[in-house]
This record gives sequence, C-alpha cells and structure tokens, in this order.
Amino acid sequence: MNSDNPSIVTLLTDFGAADTYVGVMKGVILSIAPKARLVDLTHEIGPRNVLEASVRLEGAAPYFPAGTIHLAVVDPGVGSERDALVVQTERFLFVAPDNGILTHVLRSASVRRITRLKEAARRYFLPIVSATFHGRDVFAPIAGHLASGLPPAALDDGGPETPPASLPLLQPELTMQESGARACYLHVLWADRFGNLITDMSREFWTAWVPEHMHGAEADCVIQIGDTIWQGIRRTYADAPPGSPLAYWGSGGYLEIAMRNGSAAATFGIAPGAPIMLRL
Amino acid sequence: MNSDNPSIVTLLTDFGAADTYVGVMKGVILSIAPKARLVDLTHEIGPRNVLEASVRLEGAAPYFPAGTIHLAVVDPGVGSERDALVVQTERFLFVAPDNGILTHVLRSASVRRITRLKEAARRYFLPIVSATFHGRDVFAPIAGHLASGLPPAALDDGGPETPPASLPLLQPELTMQESGARACYLHVLWADRFGNLITDMSREFWTAWVPEHMHGAEADCVIQIGDTIWQGIRRTYADAPPGSPLAYWGSGGYLEIAMRNGSAAATFGIAPGAPIMLRL
Amino acid sequence: MNSDNPSIVTLLTDFGAADTYVGVMKGVILSIAPKARLVDLTHEIGPRNVLEASVRLEGAAPYFPAGTIHLAVVDPGVGSERDALVVQTERFLFVAPDNGILTHVLRSASVRRITRLKEAARRYFLPIVSATFHGRDVFAPIAGHLASGLPPAALDDGGPETPPASLPLLQPELTMQESGARACYLHVLWADRFGNLITDMSREFWTAWVPEHMHGAEADCVIQIGDTIWQGIRRTYADAPPGSPLAYWGSGGYLEIAMRNGSAAATFGIAPGAPIMLRL
Repeated sequence: MNSDNPSIVTLLTDFGAADTYVGVMKGVILSIAPKARLVDLTHEIGPRNVLEASVRLEGAAPYFPAGTIHLAVVDPGVGSERDALVVQTERFLFVAPDNGILTHVLRSASVRRITRLKEAARRYFLPIVSATFHGRDVFAPIAGHLASGLPPAALDDGGPETPPASLPLLQPELTMQESGARACYLHVLWADRFGNLITDMSREFWTAWVPEHMHGAEADCVIQIGDTIWQGIRRTYADAPPGSPLAYWGSGGYLEIAMRNGSAAATFGIAPGAPIMLRL
Repeated sequence: MNSDNPSIVTLLTDFGAADTYVGVMKGVILSIAPKARLVDLTHEIGPRNVLEASVRLEGAAPYFPAGTIHLAVVDPGVGSERDALVVQTERFLFVAPDNGILTHVLRSASVRRITRLKEAARRYFLPIVSATFHGRDVFAPIAGHLASGLPPAALDDGGPETPPASLPLLQPELTMQESGARACYLHVLWADRFGNLITDMSREFWTAWVPEHMHGAEADCVIQIGDTIWQGIRRTYADAPPGSPLAYWGSGGYLEIAMRNGSAAATFGIAPGAPIMLRL
Repeated sequence: MNSDNPSIVTLLTDFGAADTYVGVMKGVILSIAPKARLVDLTHEIGPRNVLEASVRLEGAAPYFPAGTIHLAVVDPGVGSERDALVVQTERFLFVAPDNGILTHVLRSASVRRITRLKEAARRYFLPIVSATFHGRDVFAPIAGHLASGLPPAALDDGGPETPPASLPLLQPELTMQESGARACYLHVLWADRFGNLITDMSREFWTAWVPEHMHGAEADCVIQIGDTIWQGIRRTYADAPPGSPLAYWGSGGYLEIAMRNGSAAATFGIAPGAPIMLRL
C-alpha cells in the first residue's frame, strides 16, 4: 500500500503452532509478494471460536500502521457456501471469510468497500482450491496480491455494492431481555489461562446503556450465572472475598468474571457463547 | 538467491517455544545475512521425531518461492558422527543433518547436488562448535552464508559426488509383509491434537500399489492394530459408528486412523513408529 | 543503528502465545519504524519470573548483530513506581523495566549509558499510557523510535549519570552462607519441560569460587535440597543410578538438578527462587 515501505500482513487463525499450516500460508504470500512483512497476531484462537477471533482482531488491528492487511482465518464453514471477503476500512484491508469474524471491526471502523471474492477474484486463488484449507488456497494468495499492490477493485465482479449492514454479524449478543427492561444477556467470549471469563459486554456498551440519572449502577447491578447471583462490578480482583465470584472491567475493555483464588471457568463449567444475565 | 529480493530462510525444529534456541539461531543467521527473511514452519515437532519432521517438511516446503533455504534441525544424533548436509534441488536448498530428515523431500524432488559439510565448510561454522547445539553452531551459520549468496559449491571438499541413493532413509516404512503378498506395514508418524494417528501411507503409494483390476479395494481392505481388526477406508470421519475405529485419507494426503468420538492414540496406546497392518 | 541494514528488535516477554499482546507491540513498533526487523526470543517466560528472563536474555542476546535492540518485558511492577530504562552496552541497546531483568546482562557486558525514561522520554510514549500494559504504551514505542534512529541521549533528562551499580539486581543469589565458609545458596531459575531444575550457579562462578588447591571439588561437593543430600557433580545425566538425584553442568553453562528417570520439579516440589545448598 505504501510506496516506500513494503506492505504488512498480519495473520490471526485457530491453527495452533504444532502444524505447518501458518508457515504454508506465509510461503504462499511470499511467493506472490516477496517483500511483504508478516506479523502473527495469534494462532491460538479457540478452535472454531469466531466470536473470540472477532473481538481479538478488533482489539489488535488498530495498533498497526495504515495500509496494513489483516488476514483472519477462523473458518468452520470452509468448503460450504460462505463467501470470502475483502473489507476496506479507512485505514486497513481485512481478508476473511464472511462468517461474522469481522463483527467487531465493522462496528468500530468506517467501511469504504466490501468485495465478495467470486468470479473476478478466482484468477488470484491458487490453481487448485481444496475443500478444507482456504487459508492456503484462497485467503493467503488474495492477501499476497493485495500486498503486492493489486487494488481491491480488481477483485470485484461489479454489480450492486455490498452494504455493511448486509453482512452476517455474530448473534445473539448483548440481547436485551425484553423491550425497555433494564437487563441484558452478555456472553462468554473465551476463558483465559487463569480461568477468568471474558465477556462481550464492553465499557462503551455499558456507558451507552446505563441511564445518566442512574447513580451507583456499577455497585448495584445484579449478575447471574446459572443459580449463582451476586451484586456489583468491582474495581479490581482483590476487591472480592476469597472463594467468591466477581465482575470487573478487564484490560481489553470488556467485563470479566473471575473467582477470587479460583477458576470461574471450572466453577461455572460454561463454554464460549454461554449467556450471563446482568440486571440494573 | 535472488538478485532483487532477500533470501528466505525457513526453520523447522523440535525445540518448542519455551526456550530461546530458535531465537538464537535467528540471531546467528541475521549476523551473517542481515537482510534474510526468516519464516517459522513449526518448532513443535515431537522431540526427536525425525519421521514427523521429514513428512512435515516435504508437505510445507513447496509452497515457498524458488530459492528458499529450508533449515531443518531435528537432530537426536547431535555430537555423534552423523554428517551435516546441504541438498540442492531444482527449486530449494535444504540444510539438515544426514539422519533421514530429508527422506520425503528426496523422494519427491529432483536433486542437483548433495554436499557433506566437512573440511571446506568448517570455516563457515561458528568458531566454537559445541557438542549439543549444532543448530546454532553449524546449521544456522551455513544457512546464513547461503542466504548471503555463498554458492553451495564453496562448501564442497571436491571428490566423488554423493548420490542421493547413498543417503540413509528412514526405515522401516511401508514394508511389504512378504514377496508378492497383498499386505504391508504402515507406521504412525504422529498423533494430532485430537488423538488421530497420521500414518506414512500416502495416496500415491496406494494408487501405485493396488492392482488396477482390483475393484473396491478401499471398501474391502483389512486394517489391523494389535488385536483390533476392521474393514475399509471411509470417506469421512462421520462414516463410522460412534466408538469404532476408522481409516480415511487426511488433508495431507496420508491415511489417518481415528476413533469416532474418541482418541485413537489413547485407545491403541501406540507411539510414533508403531506398525499397522493393511491387507488387500 | 546501521546505515544500510534496518534495525533488529528482539522481544522477550511472559505474555504467551494465546493473546495478541505481542502482536500489538509489534504493530506499535512497525508504526514508528516500518523497516524494523522483529525477532521473538521467547514469550514463554514463566509468569512474572524476572530471574528466568534475566538469565535467558543474557544467554541469547550476544548471538545478534551489533546494534540490535533487545526489548524485554517481564513486568510484575507495571503501574507502580519502578522506572523504565534504556541501557546501552558496547554492542546493544536494552529496553526494559528497572526491576532486575537486566541483572545478568549488566554483569557480563560493558555498560556505556543508562537512561531513565522520565520527562524527556514521555513525548515518545503512546499518547495514553495505561496502568497495565507498558509493553505496548512505553517500551514498544521507545524501541520503535530507537530503531528508527533516535539517539538514546534524546531520551535523557540530563543531570547526574546513573551508574550501573545503582540499579537493583535480583537478590538473593548465590549468597555465601557465612563469611569464609565454603558453602553457598544457589536458586532455582526455572524447570524445563522434563522437570529438570536450572539453577543460577554458573560455571564461571564455580571456577572463581573454588580454591585452586582444592582438587576433586566437583566429585566431593555436597548438595542439599530440603532433607535430600547427595554428593558430587556428574558429567552427564547417565552417570547417576535410576531414581536418584544428580547435579550436572547444563548446556547453558548453569548447574542443573535432575532425577534420573524422573522429574526433579515433581520430586522436590520446589518453585523458581527456591534455595539449594552446596558445600565444598
């Protein structure tokens, strides 16, 4: 994208480190764009956890220079009819399957163009497209061609534009329990290495949601997981008695659930996507 | 190797991520070839599993641009008398110990020159060669010098050429049970994270092995692991009843053994190298 | 640092591979120094294990070319009053918190200048400095500016120089039991994947410590962990009977404790920092 500096391509997948899948994708990119700079975001997204990928991608992408190409492949629908996308925002290009993995990016960034990779794009794929590894056969070569200067418009079949609102977003998410009620369901995104549960309730959502006249909402709100109910969002982990659950704002800006001196993931036995109720 | 683009050096080892061994090898390469591009294939090869390394290397190497230097260090014989090699194929240079790690590369690629790293090469090693870390002291500096433009011929002591057939290949492998019999032993290469067993029976071997007039061989063949015997290669994982073993062609082109809803590695308790019998 | 070759920045942290923390730091560096070369030393330092980080950093750093910027972030005191440092040695620049993580580097390298990052440096931080992630907000941007050519002097507030001896070093370490006694406490740095315990007793320390006239000290010395006492440093792992503990010089130059056919970490149940007594 820059005339002076080679393009940066970041990679985010659920492929792990044991296999050579990521290395193979890098070989494909470098075969097309030999000067591209490759940076791993993470390859340890939970298997098929598109929601985790979406949140992590939106959290990390903005720290890269304008013109960076972000390649995100968590793709449980590989081989099915889901499309492949190139999404151009004000600062970046995203290359990803159309499965909701860009949900959080689309909320926070200003979209300029969405391109579905169909007929015009096919000439840029690898000659043989397998049923199981589009990261290598579709997404990596597209990222490579973009990194070597191909304009996204060259991938477009023409026809009506794809409006951002037409893309599938991940659901359910932060659903209001009923119209006008002061309750919503948040969801577990992932558990970190300490068993803390990261949820999809962002501080921005909280600020927009809680009425201005409602003082003390953080201290007074009620949180329920299964049969366990407690009150209040705490400032830090240390503000709860040992052995009790607590909620607090994590460093990524999302509400997190922990057990003081324990593992919330083990205590509640809940997996990514599981709902948690929060009442004001 | 290219005049315009800096050389790419890939790294494949069993060193894992916890130690700084891989970082140190990269420092050595960059000290010699400051412009080299470094790409990790994987560092999670099973400890000392040369067979796994050989298969993974041959699967990943072809996706890189011509001129790439592939550095592969799974080296249980470090400190012993095994030689170090540079193998030049039509498209790549491989730098590796002479312990069979290039078995699958040598089968599928056309070899131009094999160089044993002896007297002429010694001046390119680090000044002190340890008994335990030739990745740092021998292989990384050789890869660095090749990446900075040193021709492989400069590493050669002269004398008779090393023919590819003289290199040790990994054995036993796909051994016929007896002359003329329609049975062979395949072997476990590694277990993946789900406990599926990847074997060394490639689809190419199968096609060459099964007589053309023998219809239905995939459905009728008999597979035996220990006392467990079953019939047929299935199309997908879902084609077997829960709790039963099955064989199918994996995405890498090798026959794989799984337990439906279970772990074949745990069920059969077999390790890399263990034999499996297949009868037509 | 070099006019022809872009700067190399190495990264060593305890952030692990699951999160995008390391990727974000790389994005920040590349936003400031688009041509910088980034190399991972390891991100699997034990959580908050500053001692392990110090030893691993000193072991790996010298293998990089002169001018390399080594960024080391194991930072349990993030958000507290500990300073951030740039330390210039004869060959390298180190960017790190002032928490002892440079203990082993400072012992083995010749220090030219130590800069505390205070007022003059603040303009080079990210605009908002969080309380929890100085790797992204302070250390990565400083490394980026150094990589793009900023001289360390530009970060200095002036005033009296910081002498190396004024930096906090990790303690206790190799403490003599009593003045003149031939005994000292060494400490566990970390346990490797086999359960072997790597200690902070270097071969250099041993050589300087043991009197020249004292023959056979390696064979005769007495080692004690808890209630377990044995005699002698062995040459290799294989020199001890199965099931018994042994001490030997590891490949990194430090004394290691193992259980033959077992796990010393599991047997002794001791953690990083735990003391071991050695008597001549």
